[in-house]
Amino acid sequence: MRGVVMHAPGDVRVVDREDPQIVQPTDAIIRVTAACVCGSDLWPYRGIDDATDAPMGHEYVGVVEAVGAEVKTVKPGDFVAGSFMASDNTCEICQAGYQSRCVHVESMGRIGTQAERARIPLADGTLVATPGQPAPELIPSLLAASDVLGTGWFAAVAAEVGPGKTVAVVGDGAVGLLGVLSAKHFGAERIIAMSRHADRQDLAREFGATDIVEERGDAGVARIKELTGGLGAHSVIEAVGTQESMMQAIRSTRPGGHVGYVGVSHDVQLPGRELFFSGVHLHGGPAPVRRFLPELIQLIWDRRIDPGKVFDLTLPLEDAAEAYRAMDERRAIKVLLQP
Amino acid sequence: MRGVVMHAPGDVRVVDREDPQIVQPTDAIIRVTAACVCGSDLWPYRGIDDATDAPMGHEYVGVVEAVGAEVKTVKPGDFVAGSFMASDNTCEICQAGYQSRCVHVESMGRIGTQAERARIPLADGTLVATPGQPAPELIPSLLAASDVLGTGWFAAVAAEVGPGKTVAVVGDGAVGLLGVLSAKHFGAERIIAMSRHADRQDLAREFGATDIVEERGDAGVARIKELTGGLGAHSVIEAVGTQESMMQAIRSTRPGGHVGYVGVSHDVQLPGRELFFSGVHLHGGPAPVRRFLPELIQLIWDRRIDPGKVFDLTLPLEDAAEAYRAMDERRAIKVLLQP
Repeated sequence: MRGVVMHAPGDVRVVDREDPQIVQPTDAIIRVTAACVCGSDLWPYRGIDDATDAPMGHEYVGVVEAVGAEVKTVKPGDFVAGSFMASDNTCEICQAGYQSRCVHVESMGRIGTQAERARIPLADGTLVATPGQPAPELIPSLLAASDVLGTGWFAAVAAEVGPGKTVAVVGDGAVGLLGVLSAKHFGAERIIAMSRHADRQDLAREFGATDIVEERGDAGVARIKELTGGLGAHSVIEAVGTQESMMQAIRSTRPGGHVGYVGVSHDVQLPGRELFFSGVHLHGGPAPVRRFLPELIQLIWDRRIDPGKVFDLTLPLEDAAEAYRAMDERRAIKVLLQP
Repeated sequence: MRGVVMHAPGDVRVVDREDPQIVQPTDAIIRVTAACVCGSDLWPYRGIDDATDAPMGHEYVGVVEAVGAEVKTVKPGDFVAGSFMASDNTCEICQAGYQSRCVHVESMGRIGTQAERARIPLADGTLVATPGQPAPELIPSLLAASDVLGTGWFAAVAAEVGPGKTVAVVGDGAVGLLGVLSAKHFGAERIIAMSRHADRQDLAREFGATDIVEERGDAGVARIKELTGGLGAHSVIEAVGTQESMMQAIRSTRPGGHVGYVGVSHDVQLPGRELFFSGVHLHGGPAPVRRFLPELIQLIWDRRIDPGKVFDLTLPLEDAAEAYRAMDERRAIKVLLQP
């Protein structure tokens, strides 16, 4: 089959890879209907994370082609979405809602779903079948549920977004924008998107942002304080993962408020004393997408949310190199790849 | 009046200080019945924090002697306890339960309650009168409510301690021990006190600890994992404030679990990537003691909790230097000072 590998930073290739096989009786093989490039794929692309001939991609929707002997909840022909982390969904950690830290967790990133087919470990715990074969226009939204929607959703839950609250969102990538959508869903009174890109500002407004703040760092914090009577936001979603974005998020939050952080941390060191006196709640990490997946699929199926709008470029799988370039250069918010 | 000042690190003196006066119409003056030395007073004592001729002490109970024109809820003759942070208890932050970050907050540490009298700013928002004049044996417990009990209580709340949960407590000072008492009150199933001092282990058991772990650092974390099926505790109370204790707390917590940290952070830098992948909730800071004070006073009044047991040495105010020495050398858990 054809699949994407990162030969070296900046060097994305589509190559012949071995067809996946059932290895464990809990595995499924899916034919990938759509995959995409994640903001986190840009870390190795930019040489910040290592990558040498690494299979790429961890987001996917597709059709089940084969299942192992122990798989019970999905069968060949089912259309499925799944999390970027495979989980058994039965261990104590999964049952508490933290499937991305399942005791048997496996990262889909190591498998590489930017490909024609993919092996899904722990299929019963990882995949959720849609109510039927989806209309083509639902595919992007279902794909978004696999990671960026689930991650923005988790960030909003972690930030305890709710009615009457003011929410600030740091980061205007797909996750940040879907954090805005999630905050709207959870009934936030005011949603402040921090963005300096007109196209992303527009989408943020469409998803429910009531205010846009273009300033960053200390100036951004000052602006959030100004908009919240000097106190800071009740809830702040952090969707970048840098030192600046984390400190911007913490400093934009009022004492007793909540920071939900989902940007994968890179070279972040949180100063203990400042964090202590900030009095904020801090929660985040790799989103337990599987917790939310049944609900997200239903909301998409019922056309109550349209997270697929974050895909502003669709390319054939063979053009993966251009997909990475477009995201790296911020010409695209998020690129959908069609095998 | 007589009062304690820290002339320089390690040099604690009892000197003549000016009698406090009503400055603002919201002030009260109290005659201090009992004050004490806090673990956090040892930071300047050891030269880690600055102190030059600084009035000392922020914990207190006493009898109101005078009130400003606007004070309504306490009157001369009332016996009162109050938080180590003065707060108006009416602003939006106070109303959300974060009185130690009140928009008008004043630190009692700057006033110095290791003295015969003290000015209490924002008396209506800061002080709570007891139901009557307390029996002498209740004084230590009421004094504990002023900081160490309220802080251990907040840590347990921040760590979301509850029925069926396993709680680990890092730190065996007064706050850690009262974290154990609080965890017991909130119905924890298992309470693991981390301590290597026999007298503190005994008190931890008396307060409700079911297990004692003597190991620290990585070995301590390994032991907590061993006691919790490899997962870590649901809730961890951190009551020290060092890099080691914070990392011990975070690493002892299961994914999705809660760390309540109340040790004042000193030279702590939290590694963002490890924190991200830990998946824990982190909440803490200066405890909003005022939130809990009415309930704590009632529990003490009804003799349902006996937090005053943390005071294992009582000295006259004039012997403050010995009180600091005893705590610094860990000869005493906590020293009560009688003006």
